[in-house]
Amino acid sequence: MRVHVEELQVQTRSREDIVIITGGIESAIERSGIKRGIALIYVPHATAMLAVNENEPRLKEDILSKLRQLFPRNAGYRHDEIDDNANAHLANVFLGPHLVVPVINGRAARGTWQDVMMIEMDGPRARRVIVVVVGE
Amino acid sequence: MRVHVEELQVQTRSREDIVIITGGIESAIERSGIKRGIALIYVPHATAMLAVNENEPRLKEDILSKLRQLFPRNAGYRHDEIDDNANAHLANVFLGPHLVVPVINGRAARGTWQDVMMIEMDGPRARRVIVVVVGE
Amino acid sequence: MRVHVEELQVQTRSREDIVIITGGIESAIERSGIKRGIALIYVPHATAMLAVNENEPRLKEDILSKLRQLFPRNAGYRHDEIDDNANAHLANVFLGPHLVVPVINGRAARGTWQDVMMIEMDGPRARRVIVVVVGE
Repeated sequence: MRVHVEELQVQTRSREDIVIITGGIESAIERSGIKRGIALIYVPHATAMLAVNENEPRLKEDILSKLRQLFPRNAGYRHDEIDDNANAHLANVFLGPHLVVPVINGRAARGTWQDVMMIEMDGPRARRVIVVVVGE
Repeated sequence: MRVHVEELQVQTRSREDIVIITGGIESAIERSGIKRGIALIYVPHATAMLAVNENEPRLKEDILSKLRQLFPRNAGYRHDEIDDNANAHLANVFLGPHLVVPVINGRAARGTWQDVMMIEMDGPRARRVIVVVVGE
Repeated sequence: MRVHVEELQVQTRSREDIVIITGGIESAIERSGIKRGIALIYVPHATAMLAVNENEPRLKEDILSKLRQLFPRNAGYRHDEIDDNANAHLANVFLGPHLVVPVINGRAARGTWQDVMMIEMDGPRARRVIVVVVGE
């Protein structure tokens, strides 16, 4: 049993953005040499979050549209009295900064329509993504 | 320290359905022989998701009603131009395909009102649920 | 590789409340003696949930306001025919009872604006929070 830790750098391009990070995750798992176990993906930020879904351009627009609809900007949030990103914090509370996937045969055991997405709601920013692989 | 991997098959009966999978999870943990650690439950699909809550028929109706309300079908989603299940993808982005529970004394340390639910929003389908138990 | 298990007690003060539990989590990780790995935080309850975000009083009000807006009380839920807390169950289905964070250098590798929050929607209650640290 071993633990492997890596950190990825992810750059977002606009205030709200979705970046596919599957490649970086798979590379980290491969470098770990771990064949069976779990991989934790973690974003140490309060306005960026993780999801796993289909990497289809129109769907990514739908995801951002739904987040804007449920968490609109400047909707009278109290936190906006000291900052202007309360809606991004709220989206993070719902989607979460963590994701755990199985590692089987040295790869993430994700489905055909499952890519790992880092979603930012208060960018553009350079963000860190921590990957911890635990297994044998 | 050991790693145990299993896969369950779960069949949904209608487009939107909730299937209680606690029994299968508990059996996998028991077969692992692991007494203390964690169990990852993971659905490798983009329209099925996991939750943990009370197995009460009326509450399960409320859960599906709330999902339909927040993610209604055919609400002008761009992904629906190439498919007709964007709302199910969006629900998955919010609820997530992963769940991690403690394993203590060889069992999932879940609460009295906590059953593990696989929720499908684009069924009926045969779905896979991966269980990875890590511990000693 | 080792497994460390602890349980915290958390008291909420009102029906809807957010309690910062970062200190208890960090203490459990420190007591584990584990330097690299992962920490699972798990609430074995169906109306309490976990989030990670900024410990800023106005933002905590915004979080509870958003939860009340998306999951209002007594909105004709069927579960309320036998209880009066369906909205709290629904909030739990969305936010989830589990959180996994990296452990690096013997500490939770959380960001500057990331505190661990237990959110209760059906209190005041005494709640249990289970912490499982796995690593080396």
